[in-house]
Amino acid sequence: MNLYDYIEEIPDFPVKGILFKDISLLLTKNEAVNKVKTDFLKLIKPYQVDLIGGLDARGFLFSTLIADALGVGSFMIRKEGKLPGGVISKEYELEYGVSKLSVKKNLDLKNKNIILIDDLLATGGTLRCAEDLISFSKGTVVSSLVVIELVALSGKDKLNSTVHSLLKYDT
Amino acid sequence: MNLYDYIEEIPDFPVKGILFKDISLLLTKNEAVNKVKTDFLKLIKPYQVDLIGGLDARGFLFSTLIADALGVGSFMIRKEGKLPGGVISKEYELEYGVSKLSVKKNLDLKNKNIILIDDLLATGGTLRCAEDLISFSKGTVVSSLVVIELVALSGKDKLNSTVHSLLKYDT
Repeated sequence: MNLYDYIEEIPDFPVKGILFKDISLLLTKNEAVNKVKTDFLKLIKPYQVDLIGGLDARGFLFSTLIADALGVGSFMIRKEGKLPGGVISKEYELEYGVSKLSVKKNLDLKNKNIILIDDLLATGGTLRCAEDLISFSKGTVVSSLVVIELVALSGKDKLNSTVHSLLKYDT
Repeated sequence: MNLYDYIEEIPDFPVKGILFKDISLLLTKNEAVNKVKTDFLKLIKPYQVDLIGGLDARGFLFSTLIADALGVGSFMIRKEGKLPGGVISKEYELEYGVSKLSVKKNLDLKNKNIILIDDLLATGGTLRCAEDLISFSKGTVVSSLVVIELVALSGKDKLNSTVHSLLKYDT
């Protein structure tokens, strides 16, 4: 099974000039999601993991799935205004604009080993912002997982943690 | 284990007068997520299921988890502008405003038995909109699953499919 066969490339989304990599088809195929799960679990086997952080919103598709398979909990790292109650927030630049991420203030992340999950690594702005939020909360990001990596954008260079990706694209 | 213990109630979110039910704490506890999974699987055991539809964004936390456990695929039902490529869209009213949901046009939902998943049922506007999108795509919603139901808002009455909820609140 070749996971690349399950990715649809869509030009000019969300803005002109971006060739968007869509995981919609992959999600509809159980064997493909199962392979993502198995591969993710293999990649993080070396780490002792306390919690999984899922990035809003496609990261949620995998964060509870992987957390449940590992027998740990997860939490949401959300865009501005989406989390209720007290939050810790940080602004970041992304491929096409500026945004803000938040985690709940009453999450106990101190001394916790955390794996971050998103569907895609582009410039690394989102994951770096998530790393900073965890670091501010005195947790440790032991690794990050993405299904797709746009290698030409060198997102890895921006991150403090090791990123593991399953599919690599030049553009 | 009592799942109610894992729900945090937060006043005036997202707007004044709403007592928001937050699943953030529940997510951080593996035993609670596992109970949600087990209970959901029990509830849908009578149905023959082809696909799970997850509602943007907290539905995604459970859609792939349940789909993977059942050995089927899933798909995203997303808010406006979030899905790339051709989409089918429908407007709906929610507890506090108006919004729009979309599914990908190239999803093959025809004659498929579908379970919808969201974290919460309030007025039923979101799930009803999702039902209509599935029905327009010639699929069948055999049932819907939510973690939390705000029974006083009578969301069930608006829906065509049977909704199963794990936690019921009067306000």
